[in-house]
Amino acid sequence: PLRGKHDERSLVFADLTQEEYAQVQRYMLQQKDLDISTQQVTKPGANFLFLIDLSLPKKADALSYLDGKGPQPMREATVVVFHGARGYIKEYVVWPLPNPKHHRDVTTERYKRELPINARTVTVGEYVLLSEFIKNKVFSKLRKLLKESFDVNEGETLYTFEQVPRGLRSGDRTSWLNCLKDVSGVYVNPVGLDLLINHESVNSSHWKVERLFYNGQYFDSVEELRRKYDAGTIKKIVYRNSPNHASLKTRTKPLQIGPQLFYAEGKRYSISHNHVLYLDWSFAFGLSSLTGMRVFDVRFSGERIVYELSVQEATSVYGSATPGMILTKFVDSNFGIGRFAHELVRGVDCPSAATYVDTYRYIDVPVPVRYRNSICVFEHNMGQPLRRHFSDFAHHSYGGLANSALVMRTITAIANYDYMWDFVFYQNGAVEAKVHATGFIASSYLVDGSLRYGHQVAENVLGNIHTHFVNFKVDLDVTGVKNVFQTKDMQFVNMSLPWRPDRYAMIPELVEKQLKTEKEAALRHHTKTPRYLHIASNKTNRWGHQRSYRLQVYTFAGDNLPESEAEEKAMSWARYKVAITKHKDSEQTSSSVYNQNDMWNPAVDFSKYMEDDESIENEDLVAWVTAGFLHIPHAEDIPNTVTVGNGGGVLLRPHNYFDEDPSVNSPDAVYFSAG
Amino acid sequence: PLRGKHDERSLVFADLTQEEYAQVQRYMLQQKDLDISTQQVTKPGANFLFLIDLSLPKKADALSYLDGKGPQPMREATVVVFHGARGYIKEYVVWPLPNPKHHRDVTTERYKRELPINARTVTVGEYVLLSEFIKNKVFSKLRKLLKESFDVNEGETLYTFEQVPRGLRSGDRTSWLNCLKDVSGVYVNPVGLDLLINHESVNSSHWKVERLFYNGQYFDSVEELRRKYDAGTIKKIVYRNSPNHASLKTRTKPLQIGPQLFYAEGKRYSISHNHVLYLDWSFAFGLSSLTGMRVFDVRFSGERIVYELSVQEATSVYGSATPGMILTKFVDSNFGIGRFAHELVRGVDCPSAATYVDTYRYIDVPVPVRYRNSICVFEHNMGQPLRRHFSDFAHHSYGGLANSALVMRTITAIANYDYMWDFVFYQNGAVEAKVHATGFIASSYLVDGSLRYGHQVAENVLGNIHTHFVNFKVDLDVTGVKNVFQTKDMQFVNMSLPWRPDRYAMIPELVEKQLKTEKEAALRHHTKTPRYLHIASNKTNRWGHQRSYRLQVYTFAGDNLPESEAEEKAMSWARYKVAITKHKDSEQTSSSVYNQNDMWNPAVDFSKYMEDDESIENEDLVAWVTAGFLHIPHAEDIPNTVTVGNGGGVLLRPHNYFDEDPSVNSPDAVYFSAG
Ligand SMILES: [Ca+2]
Ligand SMILES: [Ca+2]
Ligand SMILES: [Ca+2]
Ligand SMILES: [Ca+2]
Ligand SMILES: [Cu+2]
Ligand SMILES: [Cu+2]
Repeated sequence: PLRGKHDERSLVFADLTQEEYAQVQRYMLQQKDLDISTQQVTKPGANFLFLIDLSLPKKADALSYLDGKGPQPMREATVVVFHGARGYIKEYVVWPLPNPKHHRDVTTERYKRELPINARTVTVGEYVLLSEFIKNKVFSKLRKLLKESFDVNEGETLYTFEQVPRGLRSGDRTSWLNCLKDVSGVYVNPVGLDLLINHESVNSSHWKVERLFYNGQYFDSVEELRRKYDAGTIKKIVYRNSPNHASLKTRTKPLQIGPQLFYAEGKRYSISHNHVLYLDWSFAFGLSSLTGMRVFDVRFSGERIVYELSVQEATSVYGSATPGMILTKFVDSNFGIGRFAHELVRGVDCPSAATYVDTYRYIDVPVPVRYRNSICVFEHNMGQPLRRHFSDFAHHSYGGLANSALVMRTITAIANYDYMWDFVFYQNGAVEAKVHATGFIASSYLVDGSLRYGHQVAENVLGNIHTHFVNFKVDLDVTGVKNVFQTKDMQFVNMSLPWRPDRYAMIPELVEKQLKTEKEAALRHHTKTPRYLHIASNKTNRWGHQRSYRLQVYTFAGDNLPESEAEEKAMSWARYKVAITKHKDSEQTSSSVYNQNDMWNPAVDFSKYMEDDESIENEDLVAWVTAGFLHIPHAEDIPNTVTVGNGGGVLLRPHNYFDEDPSVNSPDAVYFSAG
Repeated sequence: PLRGKHDERSLVFADLTQEEYAQVQRYMLQQKDLDISTQQVTKPGANFLFLIDLSLPKKADALSYLDGKGPQPMREATVVVFHGARGYIKEYVVWPLPNPKHHRDVTTERYKRELPINARTVTVGEYVLLSEFIKNKVFSKLRKLLKESFDVNEGETLYTFEQVPRGLRSGDRTSWLNCLKDVSGVYVNPVGLDLLINHESVNSSHWKVERLFYNGQYFDSVEELRRKYDAGTIKKIVYRNSPNHASLKTRTKPLQIGPQLFYAEGKRYSISHNHVLYLDWSFAFGLSSLTGMRVFDVRFSGERIVYELSVQEATSVYGSATPGMILTKFVDSNFGIGRFAHELVRGVDCPSAATYVDTYRYIDVPVPVRYRNSICVFEHNMGQPLRRHFSDFAHHSYGGLANSALVMRTITAIANYDYMWDFVFYQNGAVEAKVHATGFIASSYLVDGSLRYGHQVAENVLGNIHTHFVNFKVDLDVTGVKNVFQTKDMQFVNMSLPWRPDRYAMIPELVEKQLKTEKEAALRHHTKTPRYLHIASNKTNRWGHQRSYRLQVYTFAGDNLPESEAEEKAMSWARYKVAITKHKDSEQTSSSVYNQNDMWNPAVDFSKYMEDDESIENEDLVAWVTAGFLHIPHAEDIPNTVTVGNGGGVLLRPHNYFDEDPSVNSPDAVYFSAG
């Protein structure tokens, strides 16, 4: 039996439907002046319809509609067109949905500038050309080397894994490609050949090979490598066959099934469209192709606590002795985080009993695509009490409550890495957002000096040292949108004892502060930050304390790339464990799909959100939370990194928000006393 | 089907049996010269047999026996006698077991000094006298006040909750008692009366009331309080009835059962005596009455990884405006952590399907006591993959493994708090030790100035700010006992790019260090410590790297009590996030049962273990790990603190220990590919 009712108003946050994507696509194709192609293999020199995604409604409009005070906001789509023929990228808003009739260029409105064409994501169309280019201009000229060094025969190829950023300054589009053995688990099968390809021109006939790196040696051209290889004047790699250490094939037959979850009396949650009900909780959800999973209008007992909780970005910075990875800095939303939310495997990725939800996306495709079972929702038995007390000494009794919580999950397999994103809803009113990393590490072929950058993890394979930083947007609205940012901590104060004034002792005291501006509230990693961080209301609970939610960040991240590096601007959110900004519809995300390929002049530089140092007193506040960890790969990362210990996140906990723990009202509570 | 075989040699770590306790008790009673009583209400002035517990074997003897190279170590018991008649505490070793024939005073051998009688734990015998004393010397003289202020009638009483330490210097035994309403959840029902009782003498006729605190006012004697109360010259508390906010009684009828765990094909672990088998894991376990749960000889695929993993201590430091809690610093092993491992409730404390194990203890009792179902062991479905990868781009395939892990748990309800202690064994070779806090907060009656020390959480009740620090002993033996302590981290180094020497970039490098002495390896909280800490062997794995286990500490603790305070010595382990010492049988624990009542001159001062600054190169190393959190109580701590977010611990992870992730051999692994 459900406590709440589904609310169709949550559809304002719903992803576009398959039909809506198709309508927008058709509408855009009808705009003949835009001269758009939707073919998947559109060449970079043409105008390509790259992305269609929901335009989120303005917050004020959405709130007024959700709260029954205003009309339903117009439903709109954002369309990204890579105008290769014109040398720029455009974002259009298309409306109304369904049945779009209008469009408008919103590029400069959103980014305060034009977007250069080379900031675009590499499309399938460009990958196809790159692949042909490498085949024709590189591999076909190195047949002997490929055969002798890598056992690659005619008709076979090496897999190439592109490294980013693509160059050293704005406008560059020169990518190092690591060549990998084309077997399963390619990412940990580097062969010792890296290629630097200049694909800056939208005309692929201008592309060129700028440098090669083979077995630790640099070459200026394919011809130079071939000549020296044939002349025998260089150190050669001689192929030696070995079993694939990266195989995920099972080695042991199933013996006995492991512990399973079951719902003896059925599910206690309900999903209708994009609206979820679970005990006292309700929320809307969606999945952005770019940023990934998100929830909106999260309510407990009908009261909104979170307006938006969303994944924003995931980055990794690598070290290497090989050129392919020396500069590697992945900024995943460029590839699309939600884009790679593929089907979840029952019983492994989520419990068998979970509910699996399909999603629909339009990104770098010719038609909208359905992703079957790409979100899972389940109530989990956490295997522990949420609370309990056994009274030993007085009034013998026991009271407790098992910790059953609702989990919403996507796993995004972005090339080598699989990130598991979880939002968890607890019976005490807490919400958690967390990520764990699994999948394959990125690796490099072992050369002289490699061991300064990681550990050897397989024959001739280095697992390269790197960071994982992820960013979450946490738009808490505590009793409404007007909030303050509060910190609490303990300090020891020397004081004389009231009953023995001659004696002094250091006594812990509560220290509360309110941070008043965006710059004050930008809390950097590795600075001593107060242990408690709160988004608080000026409304008080029954005991006279400001109602608040506490942000408890779980992170093992250390320093990110120094700010002296030009690329750092493209991930400046990673400077801060927590940063608080005044909410603006125009500051929807902390990063952008364009940051990766123009890191030096990124379309969104998060640190600028705080540059105006606005007041955060009694304003609508957004917390941007960064979690992560340092990854020094080790033998046990082969074949895959494990989730255990490799994660981070943030817990949003009520702190004087309620008058008592709301889990006292749980129907799961247990109590018994003696006699 | 189990992979390993049970090993009865694990019985060297087994707790004493009910019969062994009885035999030791009888043996001690036969020693007429010791003049021991085993009556539960033995008065402090007599010689009381307080504790019988297993004496752990010397490590070298145990290892030699476990490894088939030596005889079975003699089984011995430790006996603690509070010699009230003689003014000291003695520890005896009694042997052999079964059928003891000898005993020996090991006090000075263990503590390098005599133990003063006032360092003893307050026994049931002393509590009974204290209770009578308070009834006769305090409550019976304040009937009018008790009735008018607290509605306590003739024949009724207030519950008293003693605060520690008991005074200001060594030898003191002067305890503040908070008076609490004698209802369920007493700990959050303070009434506004605190009593300072001097019970220093072992002769209770010398005890006295030294001070009283009523409604924010101090009084030198019961008479003064009564006189002024009757005269109406003081601020009175006028009783007002209110519902008990601390009740754990259920408020909502069960609606629908929550998610359950089940073993469709039976359990995949086995427990024989104190030996556990689970997939590749095996280990022995025990429960010390003082320190709590512990495991020994933890092996993965037959190879020993951990010699001992054990709970050592739990402390809390409080702040308050009321004298009862101004100085409060709980050091739980004094009361006994394992002592309060009571029966676990099926379906709340552990899943219904778990295995529940009985334990037997002898502490402050007249006969050995059986604690039914006081340890639970279960395999849990963690609701997530341990590892997985979906290959989108090349060689379409999926490989994954559900994260099923074995959990061993006790919950120790030490007065107000319930600590949940978990050891978790994962399929990738990782072991976790963690603690979560639940149960009741300690609280004080609201007086002027209270709000500097916490938040009001109920009518007239302050939840007092406090710390939680817990200490684990982690005796890893990585490929044997000779290990080193290694750290790893990342640093950014500016370097010129090999293919563009004119261009420089900051590149992340691996930094490895080996810390060589105990003082170097004593890593304080709030100093910047390397992100990776390893116990490593000089033996290498297949790829030439030192085999190691990494210690990943999860903690939200900040500063503990400053070292300037005399009491800090009694919990000096809390200075360090991680401290590494050279193993010694004589340094078995980081704290002692005597530290609480003689904090100023503690029987064990952990920091002294490092005072000789011994070499930790190629030695048997022990890591002492501290985790914890700051607790600023809030309304939601009523009725009970929740486990979510309130915990800490340490994860022991293989790092180049294996040649690849051992979970590749799991029978649970799943793989499939396209077509
Ligand atoms: Ca701003
Ligand atoms: Ca907000
Ligand atoms: Ca030492
Ligand atoms: Ca050791
Ligand atoms: Cu990684
Ligand atoms: Cu606490």
